[in-house]
Amino acid sequence: MDTEKGLLIVLSGPSGVGKGTVRKRIFDDPHTSYKYSISMTTRDMREGEQDGVDYFFKSRNEFEQLIEQDAFIEYAEYVGNYYGTPVQYVKDTMNEGHDVFLEIEVEGAKQVRKKFPDALFIFLAPPSLDHLKERLIGRGTESSEKIQRRVDEARKEVEMMNLYDYVVVNDEVDLAKDRIQSIVEAEHLKRERIEAKYRKMLLEAKK
Amino acid sequence: MDTEKGLLIVLSGPSGVGKGTVRKRIFDDPHTSYKYSISMTTRDMREGEQDGVDYFFKSRNEFEQLIEQDAFIEYAEYVGNYYGTPVQYVKDTMNEGHDVFLEIEVEGAKQVRKKFPDALFIFLAPPSLDHLKERLIGRGTESSEKIQRRVDEARKEVEMMNLYDYVVVNDEVDLAKDRIQSIVEAEHLKRERIEAKYRKMLLEAKK
Repeated sequence: MDTEKGLLIVLSGPSGVGKGTVRKRIFDDPHTSYKYSISMTTRDMREGEQDGVDYFFKSRNEFEQLIEQDAFIEYAEYVGNYYGTPVQYVKDTMNEGHDVFLEIEVEGAKQVRKKFPDALFIFLAPPSLDHLKERLIGRGTESSEKIQRRVDEARKEVEMMNLYDYVVVNDEVDLAKDRIQSIVEAEHLKRERIEAKYRKMLLEAKK
Repeated sequence: MDTEKGLLIVLSGPSGVGKGTVRKRIFDDPHTSYKYSISMTTRDMREGEQDGVDYFFKSRNEFEQLIEQDAFIEYAEYVGNYYGTPVQYVKDTMNEGHDVFLEIEVEGAKQVRKKFPDALFIFLAPPSLDHLKERLIGRGTESSEKIQRRVDEARKEVEMMNLYDYVVVNDEVDLAKDRIQSIVEAEHLKRERIEAKYRKMLLEAKK
């Protein structure tokens, strides 16, 4: 096999940070060459949604059988419905040499880290975190209780970052998109990756 | 001190690969915010050159005194003239929070790696290396001697890459420039760097 294996790119972050919006902006860009891994769910299809485009829609029974067959990279239950990332599409697409993009919750990202330790993990951070300092010490008018709550919240978000390789602040959707694209481009240019490719060529040349 | 320290960016590669051209293109871009570290030399000033713009021009005696004072990050002698990177400008500029950009020879880059192990080392590779395979096995008409020479040359270039973090092929100057800018942007978004900044903010908030 000649094709270089694609990357697995995982975008995650606290809920409400705007992961879906950033992901859509990335895939609206005609230059984006990653493949989006469509999730599977047991929730009802909504007006305007299509099976195999927005989600793969499955019955609870089908989903649970797939769980038993270890067919998910990650899955979780939210408000009574299952959501998961089927492993087969991800593996096939990477083997074809394409980068695969997942946009998932923080809990799911933890599961992916275990199965794909070499994936590229990008944490999307709320802009409030970037202005933390001004918000916490810039003005002296806040109650200490309110400040403490913000410190605790921010600390939780900082703790979450730990398993990620990169942190992108979602201050502006287009900037966040550009940063993510730069990170992926740089990842492809890492010396280990490129040196390995050349060494393989040199070995083949000797045959 | 509040300012985050700047990065040291080192662009190097085999001689003749086009380092100077790529560097100029980067600094022609108005978005480039890195500072270029001007080299010091004992060679004569050429028509159109300015002291402190193209180089700092020094006498042989001055240069050797600076060597003794350990005032260079790296220096070397080429065709009877010294060339070197003064350490003071680099350190001051990084401490002010700016990224500093060096464009130097491979031997110099080795010296920098020892003094600044955390710098970002980018290897500019000749496009011929990228087409190595076609050139080596694609056509059957070449003499085995000629092929062997190409393999040896390519092997030397691949060995050189070893101390670098990233490899950028200089197939097109604008593409090489974009790749280098992506690498630097990604470096600023590494989790360790950003997490440390947030942790510092949180600590300060507790005071």
